Amino acid sequence: MSGNTLGTLFTLTSFGESHGPAIGGVVDGCPPGMALSEADLQVELDRRKPGTSRHVTQRKEPDTVEILSGVFEGKTTGAPIGFIIRNQDQRSQDYGKIAETFRPGHADYTYWQKYGIRDYRGGGRSSARETAVRVAAGAIAKKWLKERYGVTIQGYMSQLGELTIPFETFDAVAENPFFAPNRTILPELEAYLDKIRAERDSVGARISVVARGVPVGWGEPVYDRLDAELAYAMMSINAVKGVEVGAGFASVAQRGSEHSDELTAHGFATNHAGGILGGISSGQDIEVHLALKPTSSIPQERRSIDKQGEELTMQTTGRHDPCVGVRATPIAEAMMALVLIDHALRHRAQCGDVVTPTPHI
Amino acid sequence: MSGNTLGTLFTLTSFGESHGPAIGGVVDGCPPGMALSEADLQVELDRRKPGTSRHVTQRKEPDTVEILSGVFEGKTTGAPIGFIIRNQDQRSQDYGKIAETFRPGHADYTYWQKYGIRDYRGGGRSSARETAVRVAAGAIAKKWLKERYGVTIQGYMSQLGELTIPFETFDAVAENPFFAPNRTILPELEAYLDKIRAERDSVGARISVVARGVPVGWGEPVYDRLDAELAYAMMSINAVKGVEVGAGFASVAQRGSEHSDELTAHGFATNHAGGILGGISSGQDIEVHLALKPTSSIPQERRSIDKQGEELTMQTTGRHDPCVGVRATPIAEAMMALVLIDHALRHRAQCGDVVTPTPHI
Amino acid sequence: MSGNTLGTLFTLTSFGESHGPAIGGVVDGCPPGMALSEADLQVELDRRKPGTSRHVTQRKEPDTVEILSGVFEGKTTGAPIGFIIRNQDQRSQDYGKIAETFRPGHADYTYWQKYGIRDYRGGGRSSARETAVRVAAGAIAKKWLKERYGVTIQGYMSQLGELTIPFETFDAVAENPFFAPNRTILPELEAYLDKIRAERDSVGARISVVARGVPVGWGEPVYDRLDAELAYAMMSINAVKGVEVGAGFASVAQRGSEHSDELTAHGFATNHAGGILGGISSGQDIEVHLALKPTSSIPQERRSIDKQGEELTMQTTGRHDPCVGVRATPIAEAMMALVLIDHALRHRAQCGDVVTPTPHI
Amino acid sequence: MSGNTLGTLFTLTSFGESHGPAIGGVVDGCPPGMALSEADLQVELDRRKPGTSRHVTQRKEPDTVEILSGVFEGKTTGAPIGFIIRNQDQRSQDYGKIAETFRPGHADYTYWQKYGIRDYRGGGRSSARETAVRVAAGAIAKKWLKERYGVTIQGYMSQLGELTIPFETFDAVAENPFFAPNRTILPELEAYLDKIRAERDSVGARISVVARGVPVGWGEPVYDRLDAELAYAMMSINAVKGVEVGAGFASVAQRGSEHSDELTAHGFATNHAGGILGGISSGQDIEVHLALKPTSSIPQERRSIDKQGEELTMQTTGRHDPCVGVRATPIAEAMMALVLIDHALRHRAQCGDVVTPTPHI
Repeated sequence: MSGNTLGTLFTLTSFGESHGPAIGGVVDGCPPGMALSEADLQVELDRRKPGTSRHVTQRKEPDTVEILSGVFEGKTTGAPIGFIIRNQDQRSQDYGKIAETFRPGHADYTYWQKYGIRDYRGGGRSSARETAVRVAAGAIAKKWLKERYGVTIQGYMSQLGELTIPFETFDAVAENPFFAPNRTILPELEAYLDKIRAERDSVGARISVVARGVPVGWGEPVYDRLDAELAYAMMSINAVKGVEVGAGFASVAQRGSEHSDELTAHGFATNHAGGILGGISSGQDIEVHLALKPTSSIPQERRSIDKQGEELTMQTTGRHDPCVGVRATPIAEAMMALVLIDHALRHRAQCGDVVTPTPHI
Repeated sequence: MSGNTLGTLFTLTSFGESHGPAIGGVVDGCPPGMALSEADLQVELDRRKPGTSRHVTQRKEPDTVEILSGVFEGKTTGAPIGFIIRNQDQRSQDYGKIAETFRPGHADYTYWQKYGIRDYRGGGRSSARETAVRVAAGAIAKKWLKERYGVTIQGYMSQLGELTIPFETFDAVAENPFFAPNRTILPELEAYLDKIRAERDSVGARISVVARGVPVGWGEPVYDRLDAELAYAMMSINAVKGVEVGAGFASVAQRGSEHSDELTAHGFATNHAGGILGGISSGQDIEVHLALKPTSSIPQERRSIDKQGEELTMQTTGRHDPCVGVRATPIAEAMMALVLIDHALRHRAQCGDVVTPTPHI
Repeated sequence: MSGNTLGTLFTLTSFGESHGPAIGGVVDGCPPGMALSEADLQVELDRRKPGTSRHVTQRKEPDTVEILSGVFEGKTTGAPIGFIIRNQDQRSQDYGKIAETFRPGHADYTYWQKYGIRDYRGGGRSSARETAVRVAAGAIAKKWLKERYGVTIQGYMSQLGELTIPFETFDAVAENPFFAPNRTILPELEAYLDKIRAERDSVGARISVVARGVPVGWGEPVYDRLDAELAYAMMSINAVKGVEVGAGFASVAQRGSEHSDELTAHGFATNHAGGILGGISSGQDIEVHLALKPTSSIPQERRSIDKQGEELTMQTTGRHDPCVGVRATPIAEAMMALVLIDHALRHRAQCGDVVTPTPHI
Repeated sequence: MSGNTLGTLFTLTSFGESHGPAIGGVVDGCPPGMALSEADLQVELDRRKPGTSRHVTQRKEPDTVEILSGVFEGKTTGAPIGFIIRNQDQRSQDYGKIAETFRPGHADYTYWQKYGIRDYRGGGRSSARETAVRVAAGAIAKKWLKERYGVTIQGYMSQLGELTIPFETFDAVAENPFFAPNRTILPELEAYLDKIRAERDSVGARISVVARGVPVGWGEPVYDRLDAELAYAMMSINAVKGVEVGAGFASVAQRGSEHSDELTAHGFATNHAGGILGGISSGQDIEVHLALKPTSSIPQERRSIDKQGEELTMQTTGRHDPCVGVRATPIAEAMMALVLIDHALRHRAQCGDVVTPTPHI
């Protein structure tokens, strides 16, 4: 498949650069008959968009989405759903001095080497702007999963730099710009990030996503296992450097007597597996965690080279996030949704519709 | 694509269960004209195979591979390469009592729910036996990458349960059954694992894989990014619960001033990125780490249910590893090779053959 | 893959209905560094567009294409190229009475049965309007094939209804609305089609496409043979009922001594194969022929049923072609281009760049 | 995807050459729970196999298939079904003199140019031997389609060289080696083919395949239309030069008033569409016709060249068919089955299980 298409049955084909006329996508394979409008997509886009707090990029993009096809009289027809989001606030002059140099930690160098040509404005195709397309498509997937199976997908920030964020309640997530599930720790997070910004530096973040209500049976072993496809989808998000499921890397030091989840007449006793066994959903909550690296573009001087190989120092200015993870939660939720709907359809294809688990689970 | 096919251009289609007549695969898209024989595959299979130390399953499988097509007068023809490995030592009676129950931590429950039928012998299709197919195919990929680009792929165990294994030298890896890159710590590892076994328990492991000599430019953003595809391939290995690239989860707490690798006239100053930037190889070493969970099948009593939902306790007996990670290194290397060759070909397709990086890198 | 994506490496993902806001597509996998602008696409779109002669639909669509991504400073970047064409002249009222009925020969009935919902305006997704997207994408493919390999792709009408059109010269094709390669027969064609229209009926057409300069070696046996993929691409065009290569159906009655093309020191002696042997291009002209059925929408009364199964008669009015084949030539050329570029890249991936045939061919 | 994999959900990956150790395949995505054994595949293989009449190749291959995976206690498990057929009667010496030359009409020249290496024994990968794999896989598909939906697939020869074969009854097909649906014409066919053989020549054939009982709704517009995928599958069969659906090429000269099938309260009045409208099955019989070219390998002297470009004449000897079409019917049926099952699953994925057509059809 082409590198800009995600999925096998429910697919998203994405296009668009940071400073081009528009970004957009095509969702194909969406089941017909579902109510859908721009509002459904806009709600999710608004959760992600820049300019909503002092901790995120001050680029003002309304991110207004327009649906171009695939919907008739308010319902999906089964035809591909094309949508675009026009770029508005591009402020080219912020990037002009980058044309000849490679920003450390960014894809500038690798894109130039691979393609022999690079749209240097805002990272071009490598820009995180593209994630708006994922969020828009994810909204469609979320809706269907919710209506058809009662699946809910919720993400939150579980760690900001060195600060672990204990989980208090999902209700807190929508109330703060961090998507933190914890009201108590907010002042500490704010102070921490202000400090990082004052140091002209950045930190990473750990994002967690939970899918509830996923029926047992989704996943296509042995290569398209559900966890493998989730890892793929999450790792494809800009700045992600690690993905783990359930106990994840903590599994390494665990005993088998502790880690493997026993079954009882009332369900699984624990969930170290993170809801996936043998690459197939078990009916338990699916829990995935992502590690995001610190923002590469910081106001500090950094060493780099130009196209001729001459050394230089650079300071990126303009609009930057001290932590890209602050905006990642809606994107991670979208990827979870896109992978789950694809697998719901694949399971339905091979095995007919979902088998209701035997009552003891 | 079907769930049992890996790759886009250089593909592996795998088949076979633990106790069926044979396991095998078809490698398609292999470049023609490369010398290839069973010996090339056997070498890698022998690194993986069971019965080679007291720390791994005592199932005696010769794992003799037979190539059925795609090779003529000792060279690949470009036609698909079919190969099989007959199962020999199946000892069905060890699994007989499992037909009605679900082993905790295994795929028994999810396979039964998904398909409505389950080959309960040795885990059926969910068995790690299938990884032999990956290793055989990976041998083909490794050979081509080595001959065409000088790429080397080496894996090792970086952590065993609670014990971190400091890296001393790659030379040690082939000398011990752990694939540990450290001679000094071996007695400690042996004692540790013996202790775990005596406790009738198991532990996990962390495996690291390094690819050297990968040219700049491989990877297909934005979804088929090289790191995304590596995460997918690694997470598809039985027992893997997490995948990270470069600094991985440690990136969360790092500062941007530390994490992003500066460029100098002599190359990158550091490699927290793990050799991948913007989803494209940078020319640096590609470093991937996997977390494997502890073996689920342990001799301790575990609670479970049967098909009717009745609670019971079970003790799996027969052949089991106290740490599945002990054998994982060759498998992880194979997955690295399979993903890299696919991307080498995809890059060659879109951009012509690899661009030599400008001399300063 | 998803049904609205064509290709493996150079892919086109298409969206859009006859009466929706816009149609468009995403071309992914285009090699970087090629000069490209809207003008390149517009030229081909203008060849196809409605309203250019009395023999074709009088729907006035400017078919102005807008490129949204994938091009920077006038060159392709390797990133996906998104483009849209806004629908303007939709005249909904022409189709209003069709909401409850199924037009014979159209996809109304099957779309309604499959999806349970149907955009009845102008055929919705089944409309030939979508072919504009193919033509736009085909322009990109044509350009690259021409510049990289000197490949030229030319189509023409070889039969109109009962009239066979003898080939005189390619130069005539651009001079008449039929794309007929024959100036002499034009008055006869005009009179014939006027007669058909006066009878309130329609006829079919046979379109031929020739690709010259295709190097030897393109095609991926045994399933993705070049002729198989051409058949797939051509049969996917609205109204196509048959596809043949070279001698095609005439091969049935030929002798082997006549059909198989002998090789000489100066090349092949004949070309009954149509340029493809064993599913791989031979270096000769690739010749493909399509059969298009007569337009289904005609002003005559036709029997049909409504959604409740009640019989009725209907007369479609509004804008209709007496022969859809009149506009098919640019579409067939586009499909030829899209398949060839995909195979050029696939060949380059597995076998490196094209091997120059030994000098005698 | 790789060129040796057919399908999207129900896939067949094929391997094997004429003179290698074995041919075989992997069927992935088969629904679980269906009774399956080697006998089901052998029945179809026996219909196809060589040595069954004087009109076909005298190579004696038992074509005994062995299933290696994917079946447990007599039922499909949902895991991939691997199967092989060992080559026995390879008579290498028949082909020895071909190593340096290219047989006209065969893929020798194109394979050598594409891959730079060629298994010259019996055509290597280009050999029609591979079609046994299709037939074996097709048997699995046929079974499921029959049991799940009552679909029957029957093929027959509709033309042998210059002789049109009028359809009398399907019952005749199994009684003669031509798969002719006509008892009356058999002596004429026999005499005709004997004459061709005596002339040391060959002729082509036209094969027709009919699928009955296919529900309405299968097909994935706009590119993976059911007719497009059938054209692809059929054109991929060795020696096929043309594919048409329903009225096919005869549609060109038909009037719209005749061609488009009217709907009545009792169903469609005619079936010029061949059971497919807008790329989706209509519930009517699906009718596809293939044109097979005459056998290229004939005992007459033919001009060709060797690898150095030197002209020569050649006479292929050994085992040859005077008409490859004589054995094509089971292969065409298999391709029909493989495409239909893939689309049955794809439809089920996106739209849930098949909607029962409203009672009037």
